Amino acid sequence: MKIYGKRIEKAQALMREQGMIGIMVMTRDDYQYFFGETRVQPRAIIPAFGEPVFICFKAEEDEIRSALGGAEVKFFGHVGEQMFSVTKTFKTLIERANHEPGFSPDVKPKVGMQMWFQTPAFLVDLFRKLNPQVQLVPSDPVMDELRMVKDPEEIEKIRQSQKIAALGMDRLKELLEPGKTGHELATEITYTMMKAGSSGTSTPIHINSGIRSCWIHGKADHEEIKDGDLVVVDLTPKFQGYCANLARTFVVGEPEPQQLKLIETYFEINKATREALIPGVTVGRLDRIGRGICTEKGLKEYHLNGISHGIGLRFEETPASTILPNHRTIKIKEDMVMTIGHTILAIPGYGGVRFEDVYLVTPDGGEILVDYPLDYEF
Amino acid sequence: MKIYGKRIEKAQALMREQGMIGIMVMTRDDYQYFFGETRVQPRAIIPAFGEPVFICFKAEEDEIRSALGGAEVKFFGHVGEQMFSVTKTFKTLIERANHEPGFSPDVKPKVGMQMWFQTPAFLVDLFRKLNPQVQLVPSDPVMDELRMVKDPEEIEKIRQSQKIAALGMDRLKELLEPGKTGHELATEITYTMMKAGSSGTSTPIHINSGIRSCWIHGKADHEEIKDGDLVVVDLTPKFQGYCANLARTFVVGEPEPQQLKLIETYFEINKATREALIPGVTVGRLDRIGRGICTEKGLKEYHLNGISHGIGLRFEETPASTILPNHRTIKIKEDMVMTIGHTILAIPGYGGVRFEDVYLVTPDGGEILVDYPLDYEF
Repeated sequence: MKIYGKRIEKAQALMREQGMIGIMVMTRDDYQYFFGETRVQPRAIIPAFGEPVFICFKAEEDEIRSALGGAEVKFFGHVGEQMFSVTKTFKTLIERANHEPGFSPDVKPKVGMQMWFQTPAFLVDLFRKLNPQVQLVPSDPVMDELRMVKDPEEIEKIRQSQKIAALGMDRLKELLEPGKTGHELATEITYTMMKAGSSGTSTPIHINSGIRSCWIHGKADHEEIKDGDLVVVDLTPKFQGYCANLARTFVVGEPEPQQLKLIETYFEINKATREALIPGVTVGRLDRIGRGICTEKGLKEYHLNGISHGIGLRFEETPASTILPNHRTIKIKEDMVMTIGHTILAIPGYGGVRFEDVYLVTPDGGEILVDYPLDYEF
Repeated sequence: MKIYGKRIEKAQALMREQGMIGIMVMTRDDYQYFFGETRVQPRAIIPAFGEPVFICFKAEEDEIRSALGGAEVKFFGHVGEQMFSVTKTFKTLIERANHEPGFSPDVKPKVGMQMWFQTPAFLVDLFRKLNPQVQLVPSDPVMDELRMVKDPEEIEKIRQSQKIAALGMDRLKELLEPGKTGHELATEITYTMMKAGSSGTSTPIHINSGIRSCWIHGKADHEEIKDGDLVVVDLTPKFQGYCANLARTFVVGEPEPQQLKLIETYFEINKATREALIPGVTVGRLDRIGRGICTEKGLKEYHLNGISHGIGLRFEETPASTILPNHRTIKIKEDMVMTIGHTILAIPGYGGVRFEDVYLVTPDGGEILVDYPLDYEF
């Protein structure tokens, strides 16, 4: 439990720097990060001063007390009570903060909340309506500082997760052939990865063939894979909460020169990006390297920004410039874990390719977590 | 395609009634509802007047044109362009609406957006920032009217999905025994359901045993199931976008009197609710029936509101009173599809039970879509 206490202390120091009176935890990733255990739809408040407060369904009382030790837990019987509990807790936190240096009763105090994909829009609006005395802000300035750099245990879990993705890709390679559907393949891959310990995937299994290899996001449906198709496969299993990301593109049958050109260009982009992935670089800089290579090859107009993103308890973590363009200027640090190969290099109406792996940032460039083969012919 | 055109027309009439100039489609369920096809992170605008506008990644251009026919499609190369496209479209829509009766240039026009679990909070805030000329409101007043009542094709898809859930539950019953973990069981159930056509589940597979049978939300982890445990299993596969919901509770070994009492009470609640599920009733009324039975049995304090909710392209659809308490007063109509058995009846520190099925609302009460056995002994 030591590591969790330290994370909370660090978060509290950052909250005070940012003038936040607390962070409202609404997502599983933040909850696991701070308390080391998982539950669905957890709700907790980490104040800038004092101990965390948990807000839980009353039937979970005994169980959550035994999981969390002597924590302060408030219980609700229905959703109205839950909201009331949150509002009451923040009133107490405002009073407490008003006695602390740096906080003033004249300024609407800030409360941080994660605003990424897992935070439902209506809960944010409801929070604002019920807590007009506070100013809701993204918790990123606190959480990014903590979560961008990974500790050894986190890196190991991401590596284990990536190993599971590799087992899934092995299974795909055993089964891929014309006439199979994405759904049939996804069924077998899911089974392989769950047997190896994956709790599921953080995005739908992406098996896009033919013209749909151009898609940024993927699915695995009932369309048959055909001879000559480009097939983009992207696997994102989770292991103990930590995400993996392994993408490969296959050509079913003999590759055409145009297909080969896309593939070889992607290899070059990945290689150059990997070497450049050193502390101090920005994702914007990595994109410029990629764009340079595409320009040389006459593929400039098919280049999309966002070649690399952070990964951890969330599938796409800061820096995530395809979601938040201002992340292009964030400086990468040692011990961050990043993907290389995020965007599709795609010619509209023809097809696209993606090769993606996960790397640890070292002073010498990206250290690949699992060195999975780059073969593409089928 | 006929049905989709009609849905759009109905939505447009409702938008005009509500004074909305358009709906911003951000979720897969709304997208499938209006256009009959699926894609990940779709973005489309349905205006109150005129044709829908699609905003897509440029590499998907050919593919999306062939999927949608002669639709108006705008393409973006990066996220900034995408946002610009949205803002520009709404400016045009405002100008168009200003010439229509019921819309005034002096009033900030309304734009509807789904605000449920799949709408990321940050995108809502970003939309508000970039489109200060409009007032963002929940699209529920339009979408609920359309989506609450299901057409025969939708009912059939939910029934197919529920049949897949039944296959998953059969598999669970074959495998359930002390020493197994929730994760092991979930692995086999997932495989069975995907082989039967499920694209995945809409919530994590819920296999909560022992004291965790009290949880509202579930997971399937590495804790072993023990003799004497209550085991709550809740399966939510999706088939062609439509959700199922089948929950059963099992006692591993000989049931204790207290366990039997919880189970029998739940059976009584479900039976009474099923009979009461007729047009004109409210979910609030169904809850009162449940509370009455719990009170008779001395279990009043363990009763939680929210015995029934809508189901369709979303796992929990309107009325969904455990999410939005004001849904308790919505009047149920014929041909709505509802679950019965949503909440856990749980004694803190002891255990909980849930038995849940999916019903079609008829004038005579709920018609069960798949009549799955209610056995509980193992």
